[in-house]
Amino acid sequence: MSNIPANNPNLKSWVEVPANSDFPIQNIPFGVVKNDQLTPRVASRIGDMVIDLKTLFVLGYLENLPFELSDFDGCTLNAMMRRGKKAVRDLRNRISKLLDANQADLQKNTHHLEQVLIPVNTVTMCMPVQIGDYTDFYSSREHATNVGMMFRDPANALLPNWLWIPVGYHGRASSVVVSGEPIYRPKGQIKPNPEEPPIFAPCRNLDFELEMAFITFDGKPMGDSISTAEAEEYIFGLCLFNDWSARDIQTWEYVPLGPFLAKNFASTVSPWIVTLDALQPYKVDTPKQEPEVLSYLKFDGQLSYDVQLEVFIQPENADETKICTSNFKYMYWNMAQQLAHHTVNGCNIRCGDLMGSGTISGSTPDSYGSMLELAWKGTKPLKMNDGSERKFIQDGDTVIMRGFSERDGVRIGFGEVTGKILPAK
Amino acid sequence: MSNIPANNPNLKSWVEVPANSDFPIQNIPFGVVKNDQLTPRVASRIGDMVIDLKTLFVLGYLENLPFELSDFDGCTLNAMMRRGKKAVRDLRNRISKLLDANQADLQKNTHHLEQVLIPVNTVTMCMPVQIGDYTDFYSSREHATNVGMMFRDPANALLPNWLWIPVGYHGRASSVVVSGEPIYRPKGQIKPNPEEPPIFAPCRNLDFELEMAFITFDGKPMGDSISTAEAEEYIFGLCLFNDWSARDIQTWEYVPLGPFLAKNFASTVSPWIVTLDALQPYKVDTPKQEPEVLSYLKFDGQLSYDVQLEVFIQPENADETKICTSNFKYMYWNMAQQLAHHTVNGCNIRCGDLMGSGTISGSTPDSYGSMLELAWKGTKPLKMNDGSERKFIQDGDTVIMRGFSERDGVRIGFGEVTGKILPAK
Repeated sequence: MSNIPANNPNLKSWVEVPANSDFPIQNIPFGVVKNDQLTPRVASRIGDMVIDLKTLFVLGYLENLPFELSDFDGCTLNAMMRRGKKAVRDLRNRISKLLDANQADLQKNTHHLEQVLIPVNTVTMCMPVQIGDYTDFYSSREHATNVGMMFRDPANALLPNWLWIPVGYHGRASSVVVSGEPIYRPKGQIKPNPEEPPIFAPCRNLDFELEMAFITFDGKPMGDSISTAEAEEYIFGLCLFNDWSARDIQTWEYVPLGPFLAKNFASTVSPWIVTLDALQPYKVDTPKQEPEVLSYLKFDGQLSYDVQLEVFIQPENADETKICTSNFKYMYWNMAQQLAHHTVNGCNIRCGDLMGSGTISGSTPDSYGSMLELAWKGTKPLKMNDGSERKFIQDGDTVIMRGFSERDGVRIGFGEVTGKILPAK
Repeated sequence: MSNIPANNPNLKSWVEVPANSDFPIQNIPFGVVKNDQLTPRVASRIGDMVIDLKTLFVLGYLENLPFELSDFDGCTLNAMMRRGKKAVRDLRNRISKLLDANQADLQKNTHHLEQVLIPVNTVTMCMPVQIGDYTDFYSSREHATNVGMMFRDPANALLPNWLWIPVGYHGRASSVVVSGEPIYRPKGQIKPNPEEPPIFAPCRNLDFELEMAFITFDGKPMGDSISTAEAEEYIFGLCLFNDWSARDIQTWEYVPLGPFLAKNFASTVSPWIVTLDALQPYKVDTPKQEPEVLSYLKFDGQLSYDVQLEVFIQPENADETKICTSNFKYMYWNMAQQLAHHTVNGCNIRCGDLMGSGTISGSTPDSYGSMLELAWKGTKPLKMNDGSERKFIQDGDTVIMRGFSERDGVRIGFGEVTGKILPAK
């Protein structure tokens, strides 16, 4: 996979790409766009321009690839993804070639260019994928330790199974929305006074969780498993992921079957799916795993990814304040292990499944991936640039997450995932 | 809703219905059938005959109803269900009228009859619904108490939140299969010796869970809630549901985020969805709820259903043995409360969501809805008719669940849900 032509760091495009753009010619992510003139369709992006893949197909630029018009003409990426890893890789290489400064075909056809390249600020980004099942893992050792210290036993913060199992649970697919969708503060049962019965009220401890998520291709039949060696062949790409959490609802409801209403009111994905292919240059070692994992979780090579992550809070009518700097490479369990674990019992995965990493916390307090940890259960409020303080997320706050990989002068970014909290309905 | 014409207990059909059939003219369930001659299509059933609704539509018998051919011509009921509660009610009333002994239209048209009525033993039943999200509740007080006694504190078996919250969690939609599909024994991490590290092995404590599940129509937008008074308008119908469970995997993995691989290898639904309309005559009181529930969980009238349930184990090459007799009416929380709770935080539901009741156990040992409880964690093995014993489910065993409601001489049944366990792959 190291010889993917589109990953060549020396490539330059004839399309102008602003300095520090998340979307150089080496990225070529996939998303779904629409506007008043355009029905929803599959697109890619370079710099500040969207590439309309439906039109590119109609104009003949994607011929001799295993796609049909309907793969690009719809509300989600699923039809395109269903063509499989190799087809999508070939497609990305083709788009790269069309954008290459040394290639004249598209570059010199002004009439076609006007149809194919669209300023990103003139389109609306749609929810990119019809999610089959959404699974959320819990794979940051630092996050699991922090939560264990706060809610259980500081001396035994990690539960006994944590170092053996990439712990995960099923989430709600229906309420996963795309960046920019406002989120209503959830209501639910909370128990502000431990000695009193629960009450019904709007959530008081609303939180984000800084995560990344990967999206799958079709897997194997039920009863079969995907090994760690095979896993990356079943991963289409990644996005930023905000797993909104209602901490007070969670505390009361989660025993014994796990979080439910504390999570399923909303989760937010970034709109551009960056392919796993594009991230190959950013592979790094997974943190050392001790005790040694069971055989089905062992793996060869580098299967973690160096993605720099940041979280900001923007209060209503104020500037944003950076509150967290983390990195996807901190995760104790890598995606291949997560997928191998998920399927080791014969569970089948489908095209479009979404798998969240779990909150990505590092070892330093400024790298914690949730308000719960950053403000340490409300005991260390965060100072905003406008002078206000935050223990949790307030109505009117917008939470913004950004992420990118950088190496050899090439920066592959994810754009951002944002969500504004509206008062409970 | 008490005046639904199709529910009239005095109706007789010109189609022969065997004594004790689950499918008299008062049932009119919905499912999806296919065979070598017929592409997958929506069907209903009376006695031992399937009613081909696609053909019925083509022949003009469903005119003046808000349906199109494509609603019946496909692999799932979703398109038909998307027309909404009233449309489906009118459809069921129309089918009932066509089958009524006093109605001649279809009865006397031999040529049409041959096309529309198909012996059930000549078709294959398909997975009836494309499930959006699958949620499983935990709403039997007796089951929760039994599990609490076995795994936690016998003196405080029910957890503090249980009497306040219809506890639920998200399950896996991809691995829900239709009755008859064989199930491979799952493999996973188990910890047979508490003093030793976990091992990777086929599940040793494989279990069923006797449940019913309801299927929803499209709900409200995100941020809105469905009240207990509104809930039944969003429920299409019910089926039998076997929530297969790997108890040894569950014990090791489930803290703190709930069951995952212990459940998501498979769940099995019965193929005919009995409408909530058809079950109206079988409404009964919900068990008294003490302490008084929070206001959003209060309800008026009778919202529980009297459905008699039985579970059988059929060892390979042997007769079946009845091991459990239970009833859906035992559930502490009713479906309206479950749905009100699920959406009270603004979580949206979609057409085709599946909501399991949780294991349905009664108060007597022969009414427990799982092997875990029936054989009390392996301490009281069950005797099979062939002389063998069972602590949990063995390879080659088929688990069969049946259920029906009966009143005023009318029996509305669900048929059965079966699944055979194959050795781990």
